[in-house]
Amino acid sequence: MSGYAQLKERRREDYTYILDYRTRWSDNDMYDHMNNSIYNFLYDSVINTYLMENCGLDPPNGSQYGMVVHSHNDYFSSISFPACTELALRVNKIGNSSVTYEIALFEKGIERVKSVGEFIQVFVDRKTGRPNAAGMQTSLREGLERILVKAPTSKL
Amino acid sequence: MSGYAQLKERRREDYTYILDYRTRWSDNDMYDHMNNSIYNFLYDSVINTYLMENCGLDPPNGSQYGMVVHSHNDYFSSISFPACTELALRVNKIGNSSVTYEIALFEKGIERVKSVGEFIQVFVDRKTGRPNAAGMQTSLREGLERILVKAPTSKL
Amino acid sequence: MSGYAQLKERRREDYTYILDYRTRWSDNDMYDHMNNSIYNFLYDSVINTYLMENCGLDPPNGSQYGMVVHSHNDYFSSISFPACTELALRVNKIGNSSVTYEIALFEKGIERVKSVGEFIQVFVDRKTGRPNAAGMQTSLREGLERILVKAPTSKL
Amino acid sequence: MSGYAQLKERRREDYTYILDYRTRWSDNDMYDHMNNSIYNFLYDSVINTYLMENCGLDPPNGSQYGMVVHSHNDYFSSISFPACTELALRVNKIGNSSVTYEIALFEKGIERVKSVGEFIQVFVDRKTGRPNAAGMQTSLREGLERILVKAPTSKL
Repeated sequence: MSGYAQLKERRREDYTYILDYRTRWSDNDMYDHMNNSIYNFLYDSVINTYLMENCGLDPPNGSQYGMVVHSHNDYFSSISFPACTELALRVNKIGNSSVTYEIALFEKGIERVKSVGEFIQVFVDRKTGRPNAAGMQTSLREGLERILVKAPTSKL
Repeated sequence: MSGYAQLKERRREDYTYILDYRTRWSDNDMYDHMNNSIYNFLYDSVINTYLMENCGLDPPNGSQYGMVVHSHNDYFSSISFPACTELALRVNKIGNSSVTYEIALFEKGIERVKSVGEFIQVFVDRKTGRPNAAGMQTSLREGLERILVKAPTSKL
Repeated sequence: MSGYAQLKERRREDYTYILDYRTRWSDNDMYDHMNNSIYNFLYDSVINTYLMENCGLDPPNGSQYGMVVHSHNDYFSSISFPACTELALRVNKIGNSSVTYEIALFEKGIERVKSVGEFIQVFVDRKTGRPNAAGMQTSLREGLERILVKAPTSKL
Repeated sequence: MSGYAQLKERRREDYTYILDYRTRWSDNDMYDHMNNSIYNFLYDSVINTYLMENCGLDPPNGSQYGMVVHSHNDYFSSISFPACTELALRVNKIGNSSVTYEIALFEKGIERVKSVGEFIQVFVDRKTGRPNAAGMQTSLREGLERILVKAPTSKL
C-alpha cells in the first residue's frame, strides 16, 4: 500500500484499464460537489465491468462471485456534475481467493488525480458463500493478472 | 401527450439532444436488471446537463431553478449493467414558467427504445421558491425552444 | 385514477399500510431538498417490504416476481434531510397478472401529503420473464387484496 | 485506529449515538445483499444528522461545512433488504479543523456488528473552501466532544 503523498501523484499511465463515466445530477450533494459515497459506486462499476468483460464473471449465474471485505479512499480534490470522470483500475495484489484493486478517479480534461482508493474482494462459492480451498477460478485469476502492477520496489 | 403505442415506436431521430451514460453496477437490482428508480436519475441527468450547457442554468447561484412537479414513465423492455445507455431529450411543451420534457432511454447497439417518460418542471425564483410573474428567464426559454418538438398534428 | 386535486387531499387514513423511512444525506440535491428520483426508491421499498412480509414474495428464489411497467408521481411540496418520511401504501386495482399500487409520502409531524404516485407491476414467471396464463400466484393475490381500496364511486 | 480483530468485536455500548435506518429495496445488489457503497451513504447520514441536530451544522447556509478527505470500512458480514439497520456513531479524534468518526452498522435483532468504518472530515470555510486558522466553530467542537471516546490506552 502506497503512502498518501505517492497516491496524490498518481497519473493515468499508472493504470492499465480506464473507462469514462459521466457524473449524474444526483451525485452532487448539498455542497454542489460529488458526494463521497458516490466514489465507491463508481469504483465498484469499473471493477465489475472489468470482471465481466475480461475475467468471465457472470453475476447472476457464475459459480463464484466477489464480496468486498475492505475499502478505503483518499479524496484529494472535488468534482461536480456534469463533469465526466475517467476511472482507472489496476490490481495491486492477488492472493488465493482475494484480490486488492486500486482505483483512481480523474476528471476529463484535468491532469491531477481527484481520489485514489483500494477495494479488497474475496471470491466465494455461490453455493456456500465461502472461499473455495482451491482459490478463485482460473478465468478470474488470469484476467486479474493481466492488470497486476508489480512490486512498488521497482518504482523506487 | 402521445399514447402508449406511439411512445413504444420512438426512435433516436425523434429527439434533438442525446448523451451516452454508462450504467453502474449498483443500478441493477436483485432481478439483475436496472431498477425502475434509476431511470429517473438518468432522465434528471440529461435534462440538467442540457440546462447547464445550453440554457444558462447555474444550480448553486442562478436566480431561478427548476422543480419537478410531475413525472411519469413507461418501461418497455429491461436493460442491465454493464450496458451503455443513450439518453434522448426533447421538449414537448413550454408554458410561462413550466416546461414538459420527454426523455427516451435506448441501449447502445439496440434499435428499439427501452423506456419513454415525461418530466414537468416549474422554474421558480430562488428567493421566493415561487414562479415569477414574468415567467422563466430568457436564457432558459431560448434554450428550451431549440429542442421543442412542434405539435403532433404535423405527424399524423 | 384520481385527479390531481383529489390526490393533493390524501390523508394517512386513506392508506392501509404505513412504514417510517428516514431520509439519507445524499437524498438532498443541490437545491437542498430531496431529489425527485428518490421518491421512486422509497415507493419501491414500501411496495417490496409489503410483498415480502405479507404476500410471500421471495426475490432471489420465488417462481414469480414483479416488473414495473409504468410509474407516475405528483410532487406537491418538498421535504429535506434529515426529516423522516411516512410511506403509505394501498392497492387501487388488481388484474390477472398486474397490480396498481398507490403510494403517498408524508413527513413525520406534518399533516399534508408531500407526493402521491402510482406504480403498475406485472408479475412474471422467473423462467420465462413473461406473465403466466394462470395469472399471479395465490399468495400474491391474497396479500394484495388485503390492501385493495374499493371503487372510487363510493367516494363521490 | 483499532485493529481488525478489535473492530469485529464492537458492541452497541461502544457508541454514544445510535439511529435506526431501514434498508431500501435498491440497496441490495445482484447478490441479494446490501451493496458495499451503501454503507458510506448510511455512515454519512448518521454523521450529518448528528451534526445538524447537535452541533449547529446548517448545510445550506452555515459559514463552515465538512469535507470528507478519507474513508475506510471493514465488512464483517452481510445484510439484506428489508432488514433494519442501527447506525452507531462516535468520535475517535478531534484536531484543529478535522474530526475522525467511527461508525458501526448493526442489524436490528442481531448482536454482532456487520461493519465498522472511519470517516475523516475537515471543516472548511464556505467562502474559501479552506480550513480556518482558528479551526472549527465552537458549536461543532463542543458537539463533537460530547461523543468523543477517550484514548484507547484506557481500554488496554
